[in-house]
Amino acid sequence: MINKLVEKIKKTNAPIVVGLDPMLNYIPEHIQKAAFAEYGETLEGAAEAIWQYNKGIVDATYDLIPAVKPQIAMYEQFGIEGLKAFKKTVDYCKSKDLVVIGDVKRGDIGSTSAAYAVGHLGSVQVGSKSYVPFDEDFATVNPYFGSDGVKPFMEVCKEHKKGLFILVKTSNPSSGEFQDQLVDGRPLYELVGEKVAQWGEELMGDDYSYIGAVVGATYPEMGKVLRKVMPKSFILVPGYGAQGGKGADLVHFFNEDGLGAIVNSSRGIIAAYKQEKYASFGAENYADASRQAVLDMIADIDGALKNR
Amino acid sequence: MINKLVEKIKKTNAPIVVGLDPMLNYIPEHIQKAAFAEYGETLEGAAEAIWQYNKGIVDATYDLIPAVKPQIAMYEQFGIEGLKAFKKTVDYCKSKDLVVIGDVKRGDIGSTSAAYAVGHLGSVQVGSKSYVPFDEDFATVNPYFGSDGVKPFMEVCKEHKKGLFILVKTSNPSSGEFQDQLVDGRPLYELVGEKVAQWGEELMGDDYSYIGAVVGATYPEMGKVLRKVMPKSFILVPGYGAQGGKGADLVHFFNEDGLGAIVNSSRGIIAAYKQEKYASFGAENYADASRQAVLDMIADIDGALKNR
Repeated sequence: MINKLVEKIKKTNAPIVVGLDPMLNYIPEHIQKAAFAEYGETLEGAAEAIWQYNKGIVDATYDLIPAVKPQIAMYEQFGIEGLKAFKKTVDYCKSKDLVVIGDVKRGDIGSTSAAYAVGHLGSVQVGSKSYVPFDEDFATVNPYFGSDGVKPFMEVCKEHKKGLFILVKTSNPSSGEFQDQLVDGRPLYELVGEKVAQWGEELMGDDYSYIGAVVGATYPEMGKVLRKVMPKSFILVPGYGAQGGKGADLVHFFNEDGLGAIVNSSRGIIAAYKQEKYASFGAENYADASRQAVLDMIADIDGALKNR
Repeated sequence: MINKLVEKIKKTNAPIVVGLDPMLNYIPEHIQKAAFAEYGETLEGAAEAIWQYNKGIVDATYDLIPAVKPQIAMYEQFGIEGLKAFKKTVDYCKSKDLVVIGDVKRGDIGSTSAAYAVGHLGSVQVGSKSYVPFDEDFATVNPYFGSDGVKPFMEVCKEHKKGLFILVKTSNPSSGEFQDQLVDGRPLYELVGEKVAQWGEELMGDDYSYIGAVVGATYPEMGKVLRKVMPKSFILVPGYGAQGGKGADLVHFFNEDGLGAIVNSSRGIIAAYKQEKYASFGAENYADASRQAVLDMIADIDGALKNR
């Protein structure tokens, strides 16, 4: 799957991923109204609104981008109905040949970690039959448990050619509370990065590993160091746009080959029509605003990479 | 909710929680057969088997115990159908007046963390209506993000009188890879424990805080230190039984008042009929075996607390 991601990035010249993190207040009124007219103001109605909203964005952008990253929390908050919309979104994106990064940030140990891995990346056995429950291509994983938490995911990745992005240095302001603490003079996130590199060696694709890392755009200097610590790991970079990261901050996350990083934007793309810059599209044409925001983001990053 | 947990522990004299972590291979054949006869060897069939298995265990033990801890991964691995069985289990346990600890180990930042909190502990707004999606009483949370990850959960806990157990020192062999790293001469888990104590001060119940911690039974010496670091936090202790922890290892997790800890056993209770000790019950009477295992666990811990 990492090979497919690399190939699609080269083809689109767009090392970006669109974060499908739908909040109800992002969703244009006409979509909410139609969904509520059909299902009422119910969890089912909310799920239908999310799904129609996502579909519009995917239809308007899939030819420009290699990947999407649905954030499962935004679906899980609507319970079972929300999770059905998550599944529908994953399936639809895959039908458009997009790489799907399930932003699930799961993490546990042993058989429990294996259960998450099977549910999101693998297949589960029921008697003599086998099923693929959520079937994302990559999943994000929390490293706090150490190797016991990650290895069961790796087993499933090996079997199903799926990949992981392990949280290393997250984009939020308080990420330093634990992640930056010095261990023998070096921050904890570097230790986690070293482990990612080690785990990654066990699961290599052609040029990059199936095991990537999450490093926030908001910490470009740390990204520079971590790029060297994990040379064969793709870095998934959240925090572009809404969280304050800019194209110029991102160059250090990339290798000399122009690869090695994929930058996420969620709100900045999916709710672009709410920004002054794209307001002229209007809420009815929210998906066209998203398309323009994708084009602008590609140009911003491409420009930054050319000027480095 | 922490007050209710304390009250129920006092009433049952059982500082224990039954982990409802159903694996298909734990489930007696007669239950699997009946479920597959009705729904086929499908995800729905697996979910039905899980639900019937859980119901049997809850019916046989609810009068002895204060709380249950369903591990969502074991349901999530069966996709939407599995998550319906999770929801059904949570609802049923609440109808039996059990405190439900959702072992979800979620964690993210800002609005994403808030979405998980709303989904599992709070209520979500859809237009003019409000819904409670999963409605557990407590949730387990991963602290890797720092305060940004925990605070949104705390907001929801304040509003809905729900609680958290934050991962501090996990029970698995490799938990030391990151959690034991020394920061200024002290292990990281102590720093996390200190944060738990601080967060806990903001959300106090009568005697204990709504913010508890997870510390593995397999690390009793660390439990001793952490007990002092977080005097007002309940400690949820996994790793009893199957993972190797014994009653005598557990006394340090408790305060002098005999409270402050709640010990989880999953496999040891729910698959008791598979142990030699309880084999005479037979698979048909698996729930009676679970009841006996609960009684034995209560006696083991009670004995250890009396002998300290």
